[in-house]
This record gives sequence, C-alpha cells and structure tokens, in this order.
Amino acid sequence: MREAFHGQLAELGDQLAGMCSWAGEAMRRATQALLDVDVTGAERVVSADAELDRERARCEERAQSLLALQAPVASELRTVLSSLYCAEKIERMGDLAKHVAETVRLTHPEPAVPAELRETFAELGRLTVGMAEQVRDLVAGTTTNGVAEVNDRDDEVDALHARLLATITGRDWTHDARTAANLALLARFYERFADQAVSVAKRLQFIDTGEMPNTANGG
Amino acid sequence: MREAFHGQLAELGDQLAGMCSWAGEAMRRATQALLDVDVTGAERVVSADAELDRERARCEERAQSLLALQAPVASELRTVLSSLYCAEKIERMGDLAKHVAETVRLTHPEPAVPAELRETFAELGRLTVGMAEQVRDLVAGTTTNGVAEVNDRDDEVDALHARLLATITGRDWTHDARTAANLALLARFYERFADQAVSVAKRLQFIDTGEMPNTANGG
Repeated sequence: MREAFHGQLAELGDQLAGMCSWAGEAMRRATQALLDVDVTGAERVVSADAELDRERARCEERAQSLLALQAPVASELRTVLSSLYCAEKIERMGDLAKHVAETVRLTHPEPAVPAELRETFAELGRLTVGMAEQVRDLVAGTTTNGVAEVNDRDDEVDALHARLLATITGRDWTHDARTAANLALLARFYERFADQAVSVAKRLQFIDTGEMPNTANGG
Repeated sequence: MREAFHGQLAELGDQLAGMCSWAGEAMRRATQALLDVDVTGAERVVSADAELDRERARCEERAQSLLALQAPVASELRTVLSSLYCAEKIERMGDLAKHVAETVRLTHPEPAVPAELRETFAELGRLTVGMAEQVRDLVAGTTTNGVAEVNDRDDEVDALHARLLATITGRDWTHDARTAANLALLARFYERFADQAVSVAKRLQFIDTGEMPNTANGG
C-alpha cells in the first residue's frame, strides 16, 4: 500500500515536471514566432495548449484518487495538495505562452514588436523559459537550491517589464497607440508567466518546510 | 465526528462567501476610485487586499486540517478540494481589484479613463461586482441556478472588453499611447476578474456533479 502510494506520488511529480517542460517549450516557440512574425508557428503554439490543459486534468484526477484511497497526512498530504496547486499554475503558464502567440496572429502581418524592442522581448523569452526549466528541475528534485534562483530571474523579468512600460508610456514613444497597447499586454504575459513560476517554486519549498509561503505575489 | 466535520465544512463555505463579498467590494471601490480619480480611495483598496490574502491562508489551513483529520472521500473530498481551488481564485479577484486601484495611483493626477470611456468602465465595474455577488450566493447555497447567469455576465464583460480594445487600437483613437497602454491593462484586469468568477462557479458545479469542468477559460 505504502509502496504503491510512493510510486503514484513519483508519477505525479513526473507529470508535473513534464508540464513544466511543455510550458517552457510553449513560451520558447511563442517568443520565436513573435520575433519572426511567424503566424504558422504561433498557430501551432495556440493549438498545442489544449494538451497541457488535458495533462493538468489528469494530474488532478491522480491527486484526487491518491487522497481518496490513501488519506495521506503531514508532509505527504502537503505534497499531494501542492501538486494540485502547481498543476494549475503550470497550466496557466501555458495559457500565457498561448496569449503571446495569439498576439502574433492578432497583429499579423505587422510585427507586434518594433525593431528597437526586439532584444528586450528576446531577453524576456530567455528569462521566462529559463524559469520554467528551473522549476522543472525543482519539481523533479534534480536541484534543491532553485527557489532563490527563480526569484533572481523574476527580479530581472520585473525590471525589464518596468523598463518596457516606461518606454511605451514615455514622451519619446514614436509608435502608435495600437502598438503601445499590444506591447503593454505582451509584457504583462511574460511577467505573469514568471509570477506563476515563482508561485510553483515557493509551493515546492512549502512541501519541505511545512511553512505556508506568502503565495500572494502581487500578480 | 461527522457532525463536527459538517460544521467545519459549513464554516469553510462561510469563509469563502465572505471572501467573495470582500473581492466584490474591492472591485466596487476600485472602480469608484478610478472614475472619481480618487487616489485616497485607491490607496485604501490597495492596502485592504492583504486581509483577503490572510483569509485565503486561513481557508487553506482549515481545508488541510479537514483533509488530515477526517480523510473525506467522494463528494466531501471534492467539496474540500474545491474550496482550496476557489479560495485561490477569489484571492486573485482581490489582486485584480487592487491592480485597478494601483492604476489610479499610477496615472494620478491625470484620470486613467478619458471622459468618453467612463461609462464603459462604470459598466465593467457593475458587471464584475455583480459576478462576485452571484458567486457569493452560489457558495452560500442561496441560489443554485447561478452558473448560467455568471456565464451570461462574463459574455457581456468579454464583449465590452473586445469593444474597448478595438477603440483603443483603432484609427480614430485621439489619445496618446500612454493612455492606450494603461487602458488595455485596465480592461484586462476586469476581464480576468470575471474569468476567476467563472472558474469559481464552474468548480462549484463540479462539487454537485462530480464531472470535472473544463477549467481552462482561455484567460
């Protein structure tokens, strides 16, 4: 019974790690499509998102059946509940990558990102994809010192996001209001993706410590 | 033991209903501050949000202790897990009301909303506050036919949101890029608030039916 329980718990962890990889890959492809003004690539990201939604539903079913059949307590209960929480956040990361891709479709054939901001969005892509990978490694247990690193990258994302908004809303802005509005939303999608990764990292820490983290990340 | 369990479950429901009221009131006040360019009122919404975060943490603790001590199964397990899920969504509604209030502070002393769009935001406020109230009644069990109504209002919010974005990004837009960027984000805060309310309503339905709803609402 206990052995089966631990096997199922490990499978749940594998599922979550797989979801992180999926979300990171979605953001990598969405950013590439954004920079390349590649509407076909963007469409692919949009339609692939349904699979992440299904995987999340499968995680929920597994977690519920673990709770119903094994009635875990203490740290094992925290692990199962945290898995439910994380699955939701990771699915949301996929949604946000999809929103980036949808913006490509919305502005096509015009690029959503003006030439002088391409490098900023490329960097937002690198940072957020890196965060998804860090969180995957935390979930898989192949790293333990990851929470601080995830937070560091989140600070970088926040700084880039703030700088972008200042550029868009500044006096020197030379593009039109439509471009500004789309860029403000795009920047927010990256920032929120990063926030979800932080939430997952904090929640994983909670499994170890039993101390409820402050899950409000102002997002 | 069972009686104590049902008492605690009822208390959890009361907590959630209270959180809905709180989130709805936060959005009502944030919208008022937005329309009145009332930075003091906005500050009050921002600082009050911490209480909703704490209430959510208390809900989580209660739900976890119910799971650990009572090991519920079937519909009772679904109820406790759904409470965890809903508490997170309702806390998020509070965050989004706070973001509306933060925008008032950001653009002060300028109004964030130009005169010709005031009525649109007033309507977004009325609709989303109404959704928080509908969800509160669903949680409290004082209405059962609410899911369809919540969905109807969500459709209205989506339509207003789409119309707003079209206005902001259209050729006839006469305001600057800064105003457009802030309005695009503001409109999104209302739309996301409505999405969370829909998620809660769907999850409550799931308690009754045991059928996992499609929780991906594209948000």
